[in-house]
Amino acid sequence: MILKRWLVGDPLKTAQARHERLSKTIALPIFSSNAISSVAYASEEILLVLVLAGTAAVTWSIPVSLAILFLILVLTISYRQIIYEYPEGGGAYVVARSNLGDKPALVAAAALMIDYVLTVAVSVAAGIAALTSAVPSLFIHREALGLVAILFIVVMNLRGVRESGKFFAVPTYFAIVALGLLVGIGTVRSLSDPSGSPGLASPAEVENLTLFLILRSFAAGCSAVTGMEIVSNGVKAFRPPESKNAATTMLWMSAILASLFIGISWMAYHHGILPKTDETVISQLAHLTFGAGIIYYAVQIGTMALLVLAANGAFAGFPQLASILARDGFMPHQMATFGDRLVFSNGIIILGLLACLLLVVFEGDPHALIPLYAIGVFVSFTLSQAGMVKRWLVKKGPHWQTKLIVNGAGALTTGIATIIIASTKFMQGAWIVFLLVAILLLMFQGIRSHYKAVKEQIALDRRGERPPLPRRNVVIIPISGLNRAVVRALDYARSRPGEIRAVYVDLDQEEGAKVKIQWAQWGGGVNLIALSSPYRSVLGSLLAYVEEVLEKDPNTWITVVIPEILPARWWQNILHNQRALMLKAALLFKERVILIDVPYHLTR
Amino acid sequence: MILKRWLVGDPLKTAQARHERLSKTIALPIFSSNAISSVAYASEEILLVLVLAGTAAVTWSIPVSLAILFLILVLTISYRQIIYEYPEGGGAYVVARSNLGDKPALVAAAALMIDYVLTVAVSVAAGIAALTSAVPSLFIHREALGLVAILFIVVMNLRGVRESGKFFAVPTYFAIVALGLLVGIGTVRSLSDPSGSPGLASPAEVENLTLFLILRSFAAGCSAVTGMEIVSNGVKAFRPPESKNAATTMLWMSAILASLFIGISWMAYHHGILPKTDETVISQLAHLTFGAGIIYYAVQIGTMALLVLAANGAFAGFPQLASILARDGFMPHQMATFGDRLVFSNGIIILGLLACLLLVVFEGDPHALIPLYAIGVFVSFTLSQAGMVKRWLVKKGPHWQTKLIVNGAGALTTGIATIIIASTKFMQGAWIVFLLVAILLLMFQGIRSHYKAVKEQIALDRRGERPPLPRRNVVIIPISGLNRAVVRALDYARSRPGEIRAVYVDLDQEEGAKVKIQWAQWGGGVNLIALSSPYRSVLGSLLAYVEEVLEKDPNTWITVVIPEILPARWWQNILHNQRALMLKAALLFKERVILIDVPYHLTR
Repeated sequence: MILKRWLVGDPLKTAQARHERLSKTIALPIFSSNAISSVAYASEEILLVLVLAGTAAVTWSIPVSLAILFLILVLTISYRQIIYEYPEGGGAYVVARSNLGDKPALVAAAALMIDYVLTVAVSVAAGIAALTSAVPSLFIHREALGLVAILFIVVMNLRGVRESGKFFAVPTYFAIVALGLLVGIGTVRSLSDPSGSPGLASPAEVENLTLFLILRSFAAGCSAVTGMEIVSNGVKAFRPPESKNAATTMLWMSAILASLFIGISWMAYHHGILPKTDETVISQLAHLTFGAGIIYYAVQIGTMALLVLAANGAFAGFPQLASILARDGFMPHQMATFGDRLVFSNGIIILGLLACLLLVVFEGDPHALIPLYAIGVFVSFTLSQAGMVKRWLVKKGPHWQTKLIVNGAGALTTGIATIIIASTKFMQGAWIVFLLVAILLLMFQGIRSHYKAVKEQIALDRRGERPPLPRRNVVIIPISGLNRAVVRALDYARSRPGEIRAVYVDLDQEEGAKVKIQWAQWGGGVNLIALSSPYRSVLGSLLAYVEEVLEKDPNTWITVVIPEILPARWWQNILHNQRALMLKAALLFKERVILIDVPYHLTR
Repeated sequence: MILKRWLVGDPLKTAQARHERLSKTIALPIFSSNAISSVAYASEEILLVLVLAGTAAVTWSIPVSLAILFLILVLTISYRQIIYEYPEGGGAYVVARSNLGDKPALVAAAALMIDYVLTVAVSVAAGIAALTSAVPSLFIHREALGLVAILFIVVMNLRGVRESGKFFAVPTYFAIVALGLLVGIGTVRSLSDPSGSPGLASPAEVENLTLFLILRSFAAGCSAVTGMEIVSNGVKAFRPPESKNAATTMLWMSAILASLFIGISWMAYHHGILPKTDETVISQLAHLTFGAGIIYYAVQIGTMALLVLAANGAFAGFPQLASILARDGFMPHQMATFGDRLVFSNGIIILGLLACLLLVVFEGDPHALIPLYAIGVFVSFTLSQAGMVKRWLVKKGPHWQTKLIVNGAGALTTGIATIIIASTKFMQGAWIVFLLVAILLLMFQGIRSHYKAVKEQIALDRRGERPPLPRRNVVIIPISGLNRAVVRALDYARSRPGEIRAVYVDLDQEEGAKVKIQWAQWGGGVNLIALSSPYRSVLGSLLAYVEEVLEKDPNTWITVVIPEILPARWWQNILHNQRALMLKAALLFKERVILIDVPYHLTR
């Protein structure tokens, strides 16, 4: 508990919840670190696919990057409409549910949940790759470093929204500035020095570049736009006016993302940079632009910090989505419970555990994780935009035609992208995501139908029915002799008036006589019933007696008060209470029989 | 349960206990199969050691066997005195405890317990060796066959003494007759045909035979007398007059053992038979005497049956010893509890498990187990005889000098044998036995001192002290809404008069108002207390309330009645009762707080 308080901080009152709302400057790093951080690997992933067709094929990185730039533009405009339309938070699940119904909404939710986990794993792995590009000796420790980073983020998030916002703001802004310098200075220098341009490929050299490969490089580059939806999930976390602030933040985010992404893609193309296993493309660009000086390290540290913190975006989104699902009955209720620091602690911990699992399974290698990535996000993008299209068609309202066109363009673009990603990445791992979506879907529906069945079973009728009249309650205290534990149990039983019977199984006449004498002194007037036991089975005789009482009065409760000796050390339990244990096991599922342990604590 | 009844039989009444007493003809196979079965391997073990000094050294098997014959004689006479002196059952533990005190008694008990386990393992392994000598193709399955045999004996023993006695009588007598035929016919033929005699060794040939090796072969042969003490442990199981019947049985047992053992040793020597890995000495002798005919198989089957059933002797002795130890507080109390078939079920099961473990560890090889064997028995022999010596010195009585001399000779002989066995076998595994004895000793004393401490802590004062006056009891029902589970818990709480409060943590005003309205209909007049929760912690608010009540009246009991939904399937538990679980965990160790689960069973 003390450790928890030290790590997580003191509990916060509900009334403090409003003060936890975020200003735009704090919200930007929290909600956009995920999206912006994609620039660290998106350009590299495009190149990784294109070089399969030979080094000259990298010229195609520019048109592919421009296609993705277009995607960013479309998504920004469409998502701003969602932010205004859903000020309570318009994640894909909410939008799809309110417009398309349960099934599509659950598909979106499942896809998003998987992608949140992947976001954490990919971002942390890429962040560690940025670190090991600068400090190659750490390469062999990348898995362990990744786990430490995840643990760190989990603890930060358990401390609560605002504090983690503060914590993450400085490094995120630092990274944006560092990457901005790289792109800005690099571009200016490149433009002023045209000799740096690589030998451009002649058409003959790229003839083995197929359309499939180009589409696959586009699919790989789509990882750049992951995380763009997070702002729309968290509108409620903004200071009022929530929608307006969120929309502005979204705009800023997109602008930063777009300029960094296209800048890096262009520079890599311009300098003819190819991906390496032990050094990231950004590290290579930074070396080219700044040498091995302090600014190089600033870029690497900034990138790493941005990526590791990017995972934080998922830690804001995942628990929120889980809690919404829990409230709708698709996830266990406890996912909807606030922790004492105003955060959904359960969701944070589960996300952390799953991401650690992924990191271990894929040995901390970002390129191994990427094929699984982005599909989930694009499925939810598409469902989200399609939901908005349906909404405008049904709801109409002012300017609905324009809005319809915007979201329609969004739905079409993201839909096409989804098909491209799914078809080009399917064999490389995308099938795992589809399988997981199906499993999650079954789980959501199973949980929901269980809760529904429970609700029906425990529901009270509105009228007509009356509460039951008080019934009889026979209290039975099984004893095997007189001692302080028995006296304590008796003391407890006598604290409420009623019918109390101590029951003793007579195995030995001498012993029985002794018990009766002691009972006269200690029994406090409670009846002592001696049961004979022809089969020497204490348990059997007690059970038979309980059955007898139950049969005699088919309406009575029976309370079995068990005097239990609680040893000071756990292993001493093997020396005690074997009979009590068997008695409890035998009575546990008996209707109308209630068991009470009255513990007597030993001190040595 | 049905399986148990079918395997083990219906429960027996205590009154039937007397009828379970054994006649001599039934007692002989039960108590002496262990001792007599030793002839199957004792002669072979002597030869196995002697051949280490060359094949000619086997001539020494005759003097070694004669020394062991002397041991049998001494033990028979001394143990008959114990049987008469301890009609209640005079195991080494009882004799040592009443004459020498706790420590030596516990050493004897520990040594005996270890040897009981070894007896089962060695006998079963040797029995399977007899089988695989006749049917070599089964050799590879010996471990599995051994486990099946142990399981079989365990089940038979759980059925109860008399029935297993009947069951074991036929094969034991069959084996005695078969081995008797082998020794009788074999000896007569050998004597009438002196040409069968092997070339006797000249002194030169055996010069590398050391005294140590001769002593070691004696130690190995001492396995012949193991089990001789079992009759004295079980005097109570005989029909009256118990001591006389037991003494007569002991005499018969010794006579059979002695004649079979010396006969086999002599025949092996006479025919110059040497031990083989894949065929036992007895199998070789039977082949020589009867060829491969039906009588050969009768000898092998008889030997196997005798050995496997020999383990049964330990199943009579081990649980009895454990129950005596349990009654004296050195073993867990439950070891002293009769099962419903008048046997100590726990002891039987534990012995079976340990023997199986040994068999698996030593891969079912009897020669690997033998070095551990016999030490324990001889330690207990020695302590037993030493105890009798002390007894005669203190008690005197008629003919005490003669009795003193008899037991003195017994103590001296077994003491010397113990030293020989321990010193010659120490490095081969005897050290394990000494280590185990020490561990068991610590365990016995630990258990005893724990029970003593508990007894002191729970003991009631004889006079002066009065039972406590009835105290107040505040019943608290924590609820989060109204449903059938809550109504059921309320119904239970109201079945005894007293102070009942339903407690509701108000997280949401609207929800709270609804609960209050429903409570008016269903609450049955019970007070509903709404707690505010500044930290949104239902658990925290409830705990604070409980603390408040406890503080207000430092004498009151608090009963927390928890309405619990019990799902139809176990895995559904993860979807329920998380709060109830946390509440219980938080209140479990609170003094004066008693928890009651009132389950509401779901059906789907």
